Amino acid sequence: MFFQTIDILGTIAFAISGVLVAMNKRMDPFGVLIIAFVTAVGGGTLRDIMVGVEPVSWMRNMTFVYVIIGSAIFAVIFRNYLKHLRRSLFLFDTIGIGLYTVIGIETGLVAGLHPIICVALGTMTACFGGVTRDILCNEIPVIFRKEIYATACIVGGLSYFLMRFFLKDENYLFVIAGLVVIVIRLIAVRFQISLPSLYTSEDSDKQ
Amino acid sequence: MFFQTIDILGTIAFAISGVLVAMNKRMDPFGVLIIAFVTAVGGGTLRDIMVGVEPVSWMRNMTFVYVIIGSAIFAVIFRNYLKHLRRSLFLFDTIGIGLYTVIGIETGLVAGLHPIICVALGTMTACFGGVTRDILCNEIPVIFRKEIYATACIVGGLSYFLMRFFLKDENYLFVIAGLVVIVIRLIAVRFQISLPSLYTSEDSDKQ
Amino acid sequence: MFFQTIDILGTIAFAISGVLVAMNKRMDPFGVLIIAFVTAVGGGTLRDIMVGVEPVSWMRNMTFVYVIIGSAIFAVIFRNYLKHLRRSLFLFDTIGIGLYTVIGIETGLVAGLHPIICVALGTMTACFGGVTRDILCNEIPVIFRKEIYATACIVGGLSYFLMRFFLKDENYLFVIAGLVVIVIRLIAVRFQISLPSLYTSEDSDKQ
Repeated sequence: MFFQTIDILGTIAFAISGVLVAMNKRMDPFGVLIIAFVTAVGGGTLRDIMVGVEPVSWMRNMTFVYVIIGSAIFAVIFRNYLKHLRRSLFLFDTIGIGLYTVIGIETGLVAGLHPIICVALGTMTACFGGVTRDILCNEIPVIFRKEIYATACIVGGLSYFLMRFFLKDENYLFVIAGLVVIVIRLIAVRFQISLPSLYTSEDSDKQ
Repeated sequence: MFFQTIDILGTIAFAISGVLVAMNKRMDPFGVLIIAFVTAVGGGTLRDIMVGVEPVSWMRNMTFVYVIIGSAIFAVIFRNYLKHLRRSLFLFDTIGIGLYTVIGIETGLVAGLHPIICVALGTMTACFGGVTRDILCNEIPVIFRKEIYATACIVGGLSYFLMRFFLKDENYLFVIAGLVVIVIRLIAVRFQISLPSLYTSEDSDKQ
Repeated sequence: MFFQTIDILGTIAFAISGVLVAMNKRMDPFGVLIIAFVTAVGGGTLRDIMVGVEPVSWMRNMTFVYVIIGSAIFAVIFRNYLKHLRRSLFLFDTIGIGLYTVIGIETGLVAGLHPIICVALGTMTACFGGVTRDILCNEIPVIFRKEIYATACIVGGLSYFLMRFFLKDENYLFVIAGLVVIVIRLIAVRFQISLPSLYTSEDSDKQ
């Protein structure tokens, strides 16, 4: 029930973020729907096929399909209103990565995988939908933009396993880990924080 | 038998379309063969790994492999003849998406999935090989070109499930659904029909 | 034991090649780690999900994860030293494709697949990590650069099955096949050898 709920919230957030990027690329209604779908289910699909959960989750649960179609229609109808909120619309994407990181970690735990693998699964679940959306829409993939992105998922995922030493309630742990991801990303974008690059000199010779 | 036949026809159509795009990019013979392969099996591979049919179909049936290699050699030998047909060569791609949409729907039905999921599987089977071909060849992916593409697959797929209320013979249903996809795409390209974009104003501020 | 060893060597080679490309793109430390991971496990992941080995290999064997993290840290610490070796750093990538081709073939043999499929699996295992690295880093994918790349994997893979008529010891066969890949690639880059393109005239009309 708990996971069902946050999974649906993340799905809505990502579907709307997909609609907004696709509309900005002047796609037709079916193109917008496809990008909404890819953004919402891309990360979970990669996670499921790597772990071996097949048919993948969204194919066995029509709730996701209806939620995505509904969110896409909602976002299209209220597009003029959403456009005026453009500056803060990265919020949808940010909420999405927080929720999906937690879902990815849970899938790993259920499959009995190592904590580091669980963090990797969380990060993939959170980032892959957005990366695919951006590649298909010919935008610079989110994980390459200056501000912290995947890093927030990794830190949030690690925080889950660190907090487990002190806190026993799984639901609290998941809520806090998701909030860690969201807060790190919000702070990074608000204050334009980015980690230093490892690049050391100006030469750019190709191999 | 019936599905085997249309699957092979779709494979030939996509393999040849892959050869033509790859040759246009001045790839060497092995590069051309790889792109022919990716175009022909890309969509079916995505479909199979999402549904859980593994090893994926083309790995368990050497017919596909021989057909792809044969089609690639044929297309390379007759490349000068095919080049003069360039203007109408999108036909191969169009026939391919019609046939693959039907194959994808059938896979979904066999796995007992919901009609909407079957339509999604058909669309993915039809579009993913061409999208991968275009990304690897650095072309604008087919689903972004102006004319209707994925939309034809979605409408064709929906027509299958709508017609099922009136028509009982599965083979006829599949033939008609495939033709719906092909006819929509042909008409769209011939008359340069595209759906209106949902974009509403000229501002292009990034979030 | 034997395969475990060459798998780890290939993993180190690809992880370091990923670190070098990512650092050149001025990524932050987590971005560098992610690209190292993708480069090292991308090909094996594609191979495993297509054959149906799930959860994929690297998720069930923490050795790979530790080796990748260790290689990434090593490459970052000694980046100034490695930079001066830039001209010969394609060596890591070359050793990687030789080792991964062999691993891919072995996976196919274990799954009882046809020799041609095994060669395809070897080529995918070897090439897909680097292709994904390059797409994510916005470089021209390795398989499109002028020199022979995938071709070396295909020829090396075919040589395995041809030599099997004369040689019975599997380990020798794998070592020789891996060396064939590496030597072909080294010679091709050293002498700037490439296969002739199949392109025949200067017209570049799009279909």
